[in-house]
Amino acid sequence: MRIAELSRRTGVPVPTIKYYLREGVLPPGERTSPNQARYDDTHIHRLRLVRAMVEVGGMPLATVREILDQVDADDVQSDIDKLLGTVQRAVFSTVQPHADAERQTAKEAEIVDYLRNELGWHLPLNNPAIAALASVVVTAEDLGHARFVEFIYRYAPIIGEIGVVDLDYVATAQDLDFMLESVVVGTTLGDTAILALRRMAQTNESARRFPNIRHRTFD
Amino acid sequence: MRIAELSRRTGVPVPTIKYYLREGVLPPGERTSPNQARYDDTHIHRLRLVRAMVEVGGMPLATVREILDQVDADDVQSDIDKLLGTVQRAVFSTVQPHADAERQTAKEAEIVDYLRNELGWHLPLNNPAIAALASVVVTAEDLGHARFVEFIYRYAPIIGEIGVVDLDYVATAQDLDFMLESVVVGTTLGDTAILALRRMAQTNESARRFPNIRHRTFD
Repeated sequence: MRIAELSRRTGVPVPTIKYYLREGVLPPGERTSPNQARYDDTHIHRLRLVRAMVEVGGMPLATVREILDQVDADDVQSDIDKLLGTVQRAVFSTVQPHADAERQTAKEAEIVDYLRNELGWHLPLNNPAIAALASVVVTAEDLGHARFVEFIYRYAPIIGEIGVVDLDYVATAQDLDFMLESVVVGTTLGDTAILALRRMAQTNESARRFPNIRHRTFD
Repeated sequence: MRIAELSRRTGVPVPTIKYYLREGVLPPGERTSPNQARYDDTHIHRLRLVRAMVEVGGMPLATVREILDQVDADDVQSDIDKLLGTVQRAVFSTVQPHADAERQTAKEAEIVDYLRNELGWHLPLNNPAIAALASVVVTAEDLGHARFVEFIYRYAPIIGEIGVVDLDYVATAQDLDFMLESVVVGTTLGDTAILALRRMAQTNESARRFPNIRHRTFD
């Protein structure tokens, strides 16, 4: 198909498609003349994946490219772990470590100690999520919410069950390409789904505890 | 204290503080001369809260202002529900409903039906998280991941337990101001904490299932 049809079938405007081609997040079509190229279903699929990462996942295009480069690389075939690492770094690149490096480091050690020794988690020290979580806890302390960390520790075993569901999803993939894509989709769309469910769970729990308060948003 | 000391004690540069004052997310200090104002501990506290929402929560300043206006308003005193709604809309304003309005609407109905009838959740139809979740599910279908919705339904009862912890946290607040702030802090910092814990849970579960794969990131 021509670029106009690719645009029509995906709903992505032609200038945006050209931008994605220039930025290397969409592979070039098969050139049929100096000014024209032909695209196929793989382009439709990739374009939708890019849109999901940008629009639902809120990722900058540089991050999208970094992840797709890894999905496309031959040597990633045996290395889901590496892809998971890239996706993790991409998602947490916006969370800065706390300015107080000493408290940040001490809190990272405390968190790792808790998750490993109390919950028995296998946890590599260079997992970028550790720094992100420590930054959250130290920031909460700064705000006078030092007790928030106790509630984060209550989250941990609950979220442990989410990790089980996540690995079940990746395991359902029929082939390796789909498995890699499942990591990307499950992480990007899954994050948004989980935060949305958290809002609904809060609303539900609020209604359950305070049945006498009129919940204005109730139908 | 003068603005220079406010900057020193919070680590926020003076030009940024002036910007926040102009944007109305930080209340003005007490004017002591035409060119000088005096600030107090409430400014330190508010400044840290703004930074947490911007840097950890990744919120645009317009969203921060909208939330703080509600926290400061007198009539919100009895209306945690309204504040929760504002925070929810703020967080999900970046998730667009799916372009196919018919599928989006049908999926919203399906999700609400499941959560209400299978899980017994109290769920108002205008909760913005419903639209965000439906958008995720329809986008996953577009990507050939139609089965992802089954896994989202497996997340739901797990995340239900997160809602219980969240309401416990809000309930520990000693006064109403702190309760309102707990909603903001718990939502903003809590989202980041939950996603960070999800990454660690995935790593842990991956290591548990595939003990023979060398996990490169392991120490």
